[in-house]
Amino acid sequence: VSESDVLSANRSFYRAVVEGDLTGLDELLSRKAPCAVIHPGWPATHGREEVLETWLGIFEGGGPPKLRCDDERVGFLGPDVAFVICGEQLEDASLVATNLFVLEDGAWKLAHHQAGPAPPASPRPASLH
Amino acid sequence: VSESDVLSANRSFYRAVVEGDLTGLDELLSRKAPCAVIHPGWPATHGREEVLETWLGIFEGGGPPKLRCDDERVGFLGPDVAFVICGEQLEDASLVATNLFVLEDGAWKLAHHQAGPAPPASPRPASLH
Repeated sequence: VSESDVLSANRSFYRAVVEGDLTGLDELLSRKAPCAVIHPGWPATHGREEVLETWLGIFEGGGPPKLRCDDERVGFLGPDVAFVICGEQLEDASLVATNLFVLEDGAWKLAHHQAGPAPPASPRPASLH
Repeated sequence: VSESDVLSANRSFYRAVVEGDLTGLDELLSRKAPCAVIHPGWPATHGREEVLETWLGIFEGGGPPKLRCDDERVGFLGPDVAFVICGEQLEDASLVATNLFVLEDGAWKLAHHQAGPAPPASPRPASLH
């Protein structure tokens, strides 16, 4: 169980997103686990092909998002399941994301991604939910 | 591996939240997996005690949120790891959440929860990210 391998997969994910690399995302998405994605402000999308279609729509729509991933934290839920929590810094917004990875034939693959709005700096807002 | 057991744990989670039941949340939170939470608009919070403190802050602040969970979908990432994606309907907002569960001594326990804004109805917005 190697944290750096998970972080590497997480970086590959963001590289593919920033480059609008649908083939890269297809390669990274799990073929055995259930796949899902929750883009900020969107409803949940379920299913491998449907998830890829959301990225295609994004790339063909506004274009690949210019974002920088930071503050990654890896948590293991077993030897072959991990989640990464990280920030996503866009030009005009900050997001925070959960990325779920599974070890599949020796490689970490993405099963699920949720991103939502985060405060621009670290102070915590007074209210929520 | 039983989907209904995971759904039952997910319902227990929301019951505890709605009832402001910190003891119930303490009972439900994993003691072996890394714990984290991302409340809507908040930065990520890491650590079991820190996660419980965020809920205490919410309960003591605005009070327990009046929400109804709907549209639950369970995905298994192995025999003892599952994620639930579901909606959270509040009085004046819709959220969508990812809840990570691990099977611990025969019971499903919560490791991580992220909730973020969702569109009120099902149509997907034209832009994102």
